[in-house]
Amino acid sequence: MAAELTAHELITKHRPTLDQALEAIRTRAYWSPHPEHPKAYGENGSLDMAAGKAAFDALSGTRLDLGQPGTDGWVGGEVSPYGIELGVEYPHADVDVLLPAMRAGQKAWRDAGAEVRAVVCLEILGRISDRTHEFAHAVMHTSGQAFMMAFQAGGPHAQDRGLEAVAYAYVEQVRTPDTAEWTKPQGKRDPLALTKQFTPVPRGIALLIGCNTFPTWNGYPGLFASLATGNAVLVKPHPRAVLPLALTVQVARQVLTEAGFDPNLVALAAERPGEGIAKTLATRPEIRIIDYTGSTAFGDWLEANARQAQVYTEKAGVNTVLVDSAANYKGMLANLAFSLSLYSGQMCTTPQNLLIPRDGIRTDEGPKTFDEVVADLAHAVDGLLGDDARANALLGAIVNPDVKSRLEAAAGLGEVALASREITNPEFPGAVVRSPVIVKLDGAKPDDEAAYMSECFGPVSFAVAVDSTADGVELLRRTVREKGAMTVGAYTTNEEVEQSVQEVCLEEAAQLSLNLTGGVYVNQTAAFSDFHGSGGNPAANAALCDGAFVANRFRVIEVRREA
Amino acid sequence: MAAELTAHELITKHRPTLDQALEAIRTRAYWSPHPEHPKAYGENGSLDMAAGKAAFDALSGTRLDLGQPGTDGWVGGEVSPYGIELGVEYPHADVDVLLPAMRAGQKAWRDAGAEVRAVVCLEILGRISDRTHEFAHAVMHTSGQAFMMAFQAGGPHAQDRGLEAVAYAYVEQVRTPDTAEWTKPQGKRDPLALTKQFTPVPRGIALLIGCNTFPTWNGYPGLFASLATGNAVLVKPHPRAVLPLALTVQVARQVLTEAGFDPNLVALAAERPGEGIAKTLATRPEIRIIDYTGSTAFGDWLEANARQAQVYTEKAGVNTVLVDSAANYKGMLANLAFSLSLYSGQMCTTPQNLLIPRDGIRTDEGPKTFDEVVADLAHAVDGLLGDDARANALLGAIVNPDVKSRLEAAAGLGEVALASREITNPEFPGAVVRSPVIVKLDGAKPDDEAAYMSECFGPVSFAVAVDSTADGVELLRRTVREKGAMTVGAYTTNEEVEQSVQEVCLEEAAQLSLNLTGGVYVNQTAAFSDFHGSGGNPAANAALCDGAFVANRFRVIEVRREA
Repeated sequence: MAAELTAHELITKHRPTLDQALEAIRTRAYWSPHPEHPKAYGENGSLDMAAGKAAFDALSGTRLDLGQPGTDGWVGGEVSPYGIELGVEYPHADVDVLLPAMRAGQKAWRDAGAEVRAVVCLEILGRISDRTHEFAHAVMHTSGQAFMMAFQAGGPHAQDRGLEAVAYAYVEQVRTPDTAEWTKPQGKRDPLALTKQFTPVPRGIALLIGCNTFPTWNGYPGLFASLATGNAVLVKPHPRAVLPLALTVQVARQVLTEAGFDPNLVALAAERPGEGIAKTLATRPEIRIIDYTGSTAFGDWLEANARQAQVYTEKAGVNTVLVDSAANYKGMLANLAFSLSLYSGQMCTTPQNLLIPRDGIRTDEGPKTFDEVVADLAHAVDGLLGDDARANALLGAIVNPDVKSRLEAAAGLGEVALASREITNPEFPGAVVRSPVIVKLDGAKPDDEAAYMSECFGPVSFAVAVDSTADGVELLRRTVREKGAMTVGAYTTNEEVEQSVQEVCLEEAAQLSLNLTGGVYVNQTAAFSDFHGSGGNPAANAALCDGAFVANRFRVIEVRREA
Repeated sequence: MAAELTAHELITKHRPTLDQALEAIRTRAYWSPHPEHPKAYGENGSLDMAAGKAAFDALSGTRLDLGQPGTDGWVGGEVSPYGIELGVEYPHADVDVLLPAMRAGQKAWRDAGAEVRAVVCLEILGRISDRTHEFAHAVMHTSGQAFMMAFQAGGPHAQDRGLEAVAYAYVEQVRTPDTAEWTKPQGKRDPLALTKQFTPVPRGIALLIGCNTFPTWNGYPGLFASLATGNAVLVKPHPRAVLPLALTVQVARQVLTEAGFDPNLVALAAERPGEGIAKTLATRPEIRIIDYTGSTAFGDWLEANARQAQVYTEKAGVNTVLVDSAANYKGMLANLAFSLSLYSGQMCTTPQNLLIPRDGIRTDEGPKTFDEVVADLAHAVDGLLGDDARANALLGAIVNPDVKSRLEAAAGLGEVALASREITNPEFPGAVVRSPVIVKLDGAKPDDEAAYMSECFGPVSFAVAVDSTADGVELLRRTVREKGAMTVGAYTTNEEVEQSVQEVCLEEAAQLSLNLTGGVYVNQTAAFSDFHGSGGNPAANAALCDGAFVANRFRVIEVRREA
């Protein structure tokens, strides 16, 4: 079958973007080819706001038939955190049929080489980008993110992370040349001469285990890193967030087919309620790579049990912000208020513990007591979320009942400095919308330690009184070392404090944001520039994205012969 | 304390070599800064042959006091495979004292940055290179390698592998810039602007578990990869091969001190007879990286149990040469005879199974039956080793009694096509020197499978009759998949056979040498050009040396603040 998309066409179309991505990961300056503004879509084949919404609505009541081998039934039943039923059915796979079928196309995919694989991946990302408005609704109605966040984080930012992974994968594979002539002098005798061929080969089939809250943003790096390095990829979405990854698989299969490759290089493994297929899949001998975002318990299980695979995990952590002093007190409060509120704190990067000296802090507005700082922060959150429309646009919906239970229980852990507020969403009356709770704890009270030394995922923050900044630095160290952290924040005007916080972050391998008071927040990382996680503390064994994230997804095989 | 060696001096001296190494790993053409010829030494501070021998002799009866903290006794007792007692004592460490002391210098070593770490490593390698003649005797009298092999493989080739690891480590660390200015446009509003600092940070303390047969060659990649990425390195040599690595540690500590760093960044953990400290060390929380060469059983144990560490293993495999047809029959026989004989087959890369169609093969000297091929190979080995002086120079000594037992048992596994011969070493009458045995087995006989499907480390090769070349290719595939392989060789004049063997090697991730008839042998790999192992089959989970070997020995920590 002749490919509709030739390698030459794809290289011509996408190589300039790939080159820009390669330059961006080298300089780590700002760059993105994926527009962040909803109105930027609608030209050149992309869906505009109305068309994207219509495409999403049209999915309801349909069966997403991916044409996968071994489909033995249909599963569905996703209910949006906004209360509506998605009404989409997905193929259920007999993996004994599907996995062998996924291997059939691997030789051609391997032989295509790193550049062709990269541009095919870029074409997949391009098609996804064109449907960003449709994906935005799919992400919104599975994760509970508010529309703008679902649009940006689930759309262009996720696509950026996918492209970043493709760029890393490409550059890693071309570090070794395709061929080398090796000539070793032998004094007066003839030199020894060999011709060597080097071929990047995949490890096998990769398994992506998707998460509920960021199905595309957390899923694309692993998916595209594995695919770009020659592996087939089986996508096992979270049962409550199937649609965004199922659409992704659909696009990938379409592009692979058009480019003359086997569509089964990317396949979906949706599951029946309670089926729990992740454990079964993760230990299949065909699965040689696993990417996972989710609970520490299951991440640890994967690392311990999926021994036949390279396992990349992002698990839970306890994120800390140390407040020592502030040069811009209002800016700090506004920045923190936004960080705590965004997506109801349901980000792996949301600060949980705010460590504040019990004797108060110095600020540009004069000294502030511990209670004043906490009250002012509570006030800032209240102000930010005072208007219901704005609150809905920032908070989104509570993703599942467990988060709601934890939020409710948190109020019993200490003195509530800011109560969580129930907010009505007029557009989606079924949505559970809650503002964050801030609870005061005491770092010197052993009884409080169980609370602040555990991850309480959701809109729950603890204002922890510490005896001094130095004590706070040590608690920060202990928290990162024992519990892990995706992010650390600190506010200080003191050079020594800054140095000591930096030193803790360097020694315990945590990513640090210092004195953020403007429009960048500790819980946001930008592809091509910021590392997401460090891969060096218990919160995650990998970072998005670096050489280590891609280098072991393939191996280089050498064939040498006499020249 | 002012450093005797400034960073500037070291950079001036070594940066050109580092740059050449970086170029070599990119082109993979031949390159080495370390002379292979014994007579090349003696100028510019390096020890010549006599001085090297004298330095080695002077070690006997001494205590190698490294000045390490926590030294609680002295251990020794190495006996050379050549029958002499080495008579050197080494410090025994109280690791509860030594490990904390090794962390003390890590901050300064981290803050020195990738380039300074690289040139300090190159200075260490340069000092070792100057003492190559001394190291040659140390390697010879611990591994049993013959002098010239101990000199080359234990000297320049090992130093090359160390330098290669430094080059990979350096380039990996500088892929991310030290700082970046990130400016994101915000339409009509002011752009968001952040200043970002990126710092490579070490994982902690690395543990090198050395092997008996190639203490430096197999030890240097891990040692230098870990040190160059900022980690401290604890060297746990094989109890029968302490001296080469103890001297290495001594040189490293000396150079670190002169360069103003803490010598405890590199330390030795020699053990009492039967103490078995590797398991204890490997599971210490301080140990975050492990490099290991040795048995599959202990390698698998490390991978399963040292979960707090990144574990890089080279274990056992079963290496195959498939003989389908020969364009240069004599060249093939000579090349194979050398490969089987070198260091009495005690290389992880020595071919074990020679798969030959039972109906014979086509050659440039006409058709040859299975029996003729095996007899001709036996004759070639006999010819190569007919002269005792030459045999001693090629074979070296049997490294330990287990190898001798296996060799003796092998004769009972099938029809002996070439008996092992006992050779006297006039210089070292205590040496156990044996030529290889070749045993005929039948690939169709289930009884023979246990023999050819297990690693029989030492001078034992099996000539396995297979029903056809296609059967041989399938047996090759099964062997690599189930048992792993460091090397695969094949001889064929048939393009289809060549393709099918290549395809098996690409699919099962094995390094392939095709039709070698000259002075390059399947069991030799050259640093900067050949990959040693693939990291993709059961013989090893890492390759020497590639991005994956270095990328996860450090993490990059980002500190970002508003610009």
